[in-house]
Amino acid sequence: MTPTDKSALAEKAKSSAAADKAPGASHDAMANAIRALAMDAVQKANSGHPGMPMGAADIATVLFTKFLKIDPRQPDWPDRDRFVLSAGHGSMLLYAVNYLLGYEDMTIEQIKNFRQLGAITAGHPEYGHVAGVETTTGPLGQGISTAVGMALAERLLAARFGDEVVDHFTYVLASDGDLMEGVSHEAIGLAGHLKLSKLIVLYDDNEITIDGALSLSESGDALKRFEAAGWNAVRIDGHNPAEITAAIEKAQQADRPSLIACRTVIGYGSPNKRGKSSSHGSPLGEEEISLARELLHWQAEPFVIPSETLDAWRIAGLRNVKARKGWEDRLAALPAEKRIDFERRIAGDLPAELGKAISAFKQKLVAEKPKWATRKSSEEALNVINAALPDTIGGSADLTGSNNTRSKGQQPVTAEDFSGSFIHYGIREHGMAAAMNGLALHKGFIPYSGTFLVFTDYCRPAIRLSALMGQRVIYVMTHDSIGLGEDGPTHQPVEHLASLRAMPNLLVFRPADAVETLECWQLALESADAPSILALSRQNLPAMRIENSEKNLCARGAYELVAASSKAKVSLLATGSEVEIAVAAQQMLEKEGIPARVVSMPCLDLFDLQSPDFQKEMLGEGTVKIAIEAAVRYGWDRYIGPDGDFIGMTGFGASAPAPELYKHFNITPEAAVAAAKARLQEKS
Amino acid sequence: MTPTDKSALAEKAKSSAAADKAPGASHDAMANAIRALAMDAVQKANSGHPGMPMGAADIATVLFTKFLKIDPRQPDWPDRDRFVLSAGHGSMLLYAVNYLLGYEDMTIEQIKNFRQLGAITAGHPEYGHVAGVETTTGPLGQGISTAVGMALAERLLAARFGDEVVDHFTYVLASDGDLMEGVSHEAIGLAGHLKLSKLIVLYDDNEITIDGALSLSESGDALKRFEAAGWNAVRIDGHNPAEITAAIEKAQQADRPSLIACRTVIGYGSPNKRGKSSSHGSPLGEEEISLARELLHWQAEPFVIPSETLDAWRIAGLRNVKARKGWEDRLAALPAEKRIDFERRIAGDLPAELGKAISAFKQKLVAEKPKWATRKSSEEALNVINAALPDTIGGSADLTGSNNTRSKGQQPVTAEDFSGSFIHYGIREHGMAAAMNGLALHKGFIPYSGTFLVFTDYCRPAIRLSALMGQRVIYVMTHDSIGLGEDGPTHQPVEHLASLRAMPNLLVFRPADAVETLECWQLALESADAPSILALSRQNLPAMRIENSEKNLCARGAYELVAASSKAKVSLLATGSEVEIAVAAQQMLEKEGIPARVVSMPCLDLFDLQSPDFQKEMLGEGTVKIAIEAAVRYGWDRYIGPDGDFIGMTGFGASAPAPELYKHFNITPEAAVAAAKARLQEKS
Repeated sequence: MTPTDKSALAEKAKSSAAADKAPGASHDAMANAIRALAMDAVQKANSGHPGMPMGAADIATVLFTKFLKIDPRQPDWPDRDRFVLSAGHGSMLLYAVNYLLGYEDMTIEQIKNFRQLGAITAGHPEYGHVAGVETTTGPLGQGISTAVGMALAERLLAARFGDEVVDHFTYVLASDGDLMEGVSHEAIGLAGHLKLSKLIVLYDDNEITIDGALSLSESGDALKRFEAAGWNAVRIDGHNPAEITAAIEKAQQADRPSLIACRTVIGYGSPNKRGKSSSHGSPLGEEEISLARELLHWQAEPFVIPSETLDAWRIAGLRNVKARKGWEDRLAALPAEKRIDFERRIAGDLPAELGKAISAFKQKLVAEKPKWATRKSSEEALNVINAALPDTIGGSADLTGSNNTRSKGQQPVTAEDFSGSFIHYGIREHGMAAAMNGLALHKGFIPYSGTFLVFTDYCRPAIRLSALMGQRVIYVMTHDSIGLGEDGPTHQPVEHLASLRAMPNLLVFRPADAVETLECWQLALESADAPSILALSRQNLPAMRIENSEKNLCARGAYELVAASSKAKVSLLATGSEVEIAVAAQQMLEKEGIPARVVSMPCLDLFDLQSPDFQKEMLGEGTVKIAIEAAVRYGWDRYIGPDGDFIGMTGFGASAPAPELYKHFNITPEAAVAAAKARLQEKS
Repeated sequence: MTPTDKSALAEKAKSSAAADKAPGASHDAMANAIRALAMDAVQKANSGHPGMPMGAADIATVLFTKFLKIDPRQPDWPDRDRFVLSAGHGSMLLYAVNYLLGYEDMTIEQIKNFRQLGAITAGHPEYGHVAGVETTTGPLGQGISTAVGMALAERLLAARFGDEVVDHFTYVLASDGDLMEGVSHEAIGLAGHLKLSKLIVLYDDNEITIDGALSLSESGDALKRFEAAGWNAVRIDGHNPAEITAAIEKAQQADRPSLIACRTVIGYGSPNKRGKSSSHGSPLGEEEISLARELLHWQAEPFVIPSETLDAWRIAGLRNVKARKGWEDRLAALPAEKRIDFERRIAGDLPAELGKAISAFKQKLVAEKPKWATRKSSEEALNVINAALPDTIGGSADLTGSNNTRSKGQQPVTAEDFSGSFIHYGIREHGMAAAMNGLALHKGFIPYSGTFLVFTDYCRPAIRLSALMGQRVIYVMTHDSIGLGEDGPTHQPVEHLASLRAMPNLLVFRPADAVETLECWQLALESADAPSILALSRQNLPAMRIENSEKNLCARGAYELVAASSKAKVSLLATGSEVEIAVAAQQMLEKEGIPARVVSMPCLDLFDLQSPDFQKEMLGEGTVKIAIEAAVRYGWDRYIGPDGDFIGMTGFGASAPAPELYKHFNITPEAAVAAAKARLQEKS
């Protein structure tokens, strides 16, 4: 197949009515092109999911050729409609559509290399690999929940820059699995509450899951459920283009988000596997594919799309060029300052003033030496940051006063007014995290929001996607240790720092005082390609950084906070609230004539990226290393080495006032001193 | 307050109608006793949550004095009703009720020491600390979801032993937060599907969350939502004892689970903080407590309950003695074998035959040397285990054929027939994990179920509770590395082994072949006080254990699988599917004249519990240690030491056939050999 001549296609587009009449350009032929590519690619890969693309081909054909406002030649057009394939296992649906529409990166070679090393056509759609993939999907429930964040971003951005430059829909194609996942409950609750009426979920209602009939495990009423969450909901025949068209048109006019349950037959076109779970996750087999070709009247060879059909798709792919150009004109017509700000935000650049504001505030903190809990330090940092950076969208999962995430004057976002910048996410940690991914992916915003550090467990699948997609999402996780006290072990993280540090491409910050908190905030904001966790204390902490430094000392992950009086014999390594303990232990050791130093390690992930020489020097080669962290030892041996020791937790916490817990669990300067002396003795 | 004379109380119980008439024994007085204890204990602790116990005191009074079938003197009576305080922050409600009912462990001293070190009255109810606390709660959504497992256990056990010995209700008191959490969607979907009609959720519908009015973040219709999930749902006045009574009576008769939304006023009794979030999570203050005392006509001093009121409660506490004795008679009347089996299962003992069956199967495996994926090995192990152990309840989150968790002849559980032992949990990983906690806590069952290892992220809050409560829950987590191939990075765990090993009291097993898989299964079953994760391969693996051993070689976490030809210079440490690579590398090293050994490490958690001498010997003191695991290095430095190296993943995976991925990510025998030689050279 030679590349289609674009100007010729544009010509044809002008007479689309005529094109519609050609049999190869019919809806059925266009939908069957998706089916054929899906079954052939899965067969060639010898793995994958043909059933969903075949079942949802009619929905996709209507959506992508009649509704979706995208321009394949400008896939990043900021005002494009967003499409999220929440049922990510049906990736071949999207790859097929993208090829058919004429996305340049999606060649037929890529389709032929589905699921092969180096191809962009991964088993599940990977954000950043493929144009038109708005978010990585596959872990069920994430797509629909991320889309809520995108639809929210659209309204927020429109409130700031006007509907003339921000006015698009967010469409989701979701499966039974997406709707069964708990996170979908949080997501649809949030969307219903905020009346995100430009969010339209097409539910591939095929009544089949991997184990068999949906009825094996589900008896609920999906429509009633969505209505209960404040959505419109209808059920239609998902193979009837007219019904699909009418339902989407109606949803576009709704005053609330819409669910369109499209009753489909999984594996549509496969005579023996249609409507069965056997078409879900395995190749159909050569023989069954032949039979399907017959049934669908699809004569073409594998990976060949008849030119009439391909032309019809390519014409559809070009239909929004004019709309895109009109948008460009409207953007250009904005006042210069507004337009530049819009473009800066979409590009993800930080405004120049931010650095200055942070620098000035750091000087103030150094001078005033406040004894704040780092959650309070974070709030004060946000007062400065949010004043200088309009991109931030804050929030909390119903712990606003505890997470200290709402800065001075920050107004809540409501269904009636999207000009605010603080979101009451409700008790929806997972939905919040997924929505933040959507806010970041949409572009224009830097989302941050809070809950307790222990509840990163609830957010974890979404945090993983932040990391995998390299999104600048900032998790403000307070109450970061037994230092939270009386709430007890269910609320006291002990393994969470380790479990988060183990995740690739995630920056875990645990600052020790107000200055470090500000520096960590700065690093998180500057980290355009990785999410951050700010682990913050509930309890007050003394000021550690009492001399000003223009440099961000947290940027390399660790720095010497207190030097030894002479050649150090002991290095005390600590993070966050335990730096105070390390400093006290250092003073005690020095008093006993043992030269010791303190290394504050606010970000081990950044530290690990430094040169081996820096790392050795910082850890104190030849010294006995004692690490102190009110959490489990897991992961610390890398820094301690075989001669060192660890002062921290060995199991779950307990319910009591924080000072008593530190004593009870022996996380004290005395314990650190005793460990250092014992290890020095062993060594000598 | 002197201990109440129990026989005198029993006497009074006979004329409870008369007692009802005394003003101190009125419903209001009894409910106010809860309110007074809650506000006084929170005030004394200077932290805690008075609002919920004060608001829900009427519900609790009706439920505990009229309905709940418990005997405080026999808190473990197997056929007791279960009560789950899903809103665990309202712990003082439960502690107050338990004290009032006369639980022996809940003394007034414990109430006075609320939230103090060493007291059983922790900030949130901790299972195992307090009689009558059926599950640890606090992380929202967990209680209601765990209760689904308990209600399921009740039906399953009844199907096995008869309604005459198993016939009880499961009651939940849940908050707005419980219902907003995503896991509640999965839980109520499962409960509705299985028609768990003896599950009754009392929803403390107070329209207040921590951030303020519920309407800040929620606009949904809770009743409609539960109805959509197949529940009965009603709304009542939660301060009207007659309405509460009528609603519970009706719910007891229902053919499906019931939600009773009890409209309450948070902080009821506090004149200035009632109905406000300010009563939620902080002491009311001495002054406000005085005003509340006035309003409630509560004259007694803090921590003093007027004898008339206490007597009325204690009488209520004794009202089920007869029922309990009747049950004991019915149990005794069972055929001896059945009764003994019932008692064994409630005690959590394993049948003697199990060990023999496992032993015989191990011999067979050693002889036959199957090249199975460990997920397949697990299935084969289950065929043996389930035949010898009637306690197991299997399942999968819609990946039955992939997780291989359904053994030969295992029948599914349905709403119509609870005699089966396999549960189609649906795409509800989190709800499944919480339900398994409930199945284990209820006693009588050993739950196991599967999903992909990467989706432990979805289950994590419930896994943490399994560990914190020390419950024998077995997570069968297949597709444990990039070895799953084409599904790509969203499905390939890389940080999960580390993140799970970091969790206290959780055993993470990663067996290398069929024999190790069987041994790990045995250890998981024998681990009565800790949950287990079985991390299993999708891909086939050769037999490693080709000589029979009566001993379970996995029991100490690591063992020498291949010895060096002479004094070892290199120790190759590996787990699971990478043991094969280690063995190949060992042979290559030996060929080059470098004596090397292979240590299989199927459970690092168990290995860490061994003596330092054993650990040193096993790791190979003085050898260069090369660890191989298709996952991140995080946590491995403890075993490798400063002279060793690690062969594994440094970031997320990719989509391609498994063998190509192993090459691409350089997890090969060649890489291990090269690393060993490089490290040997550095050392010399």
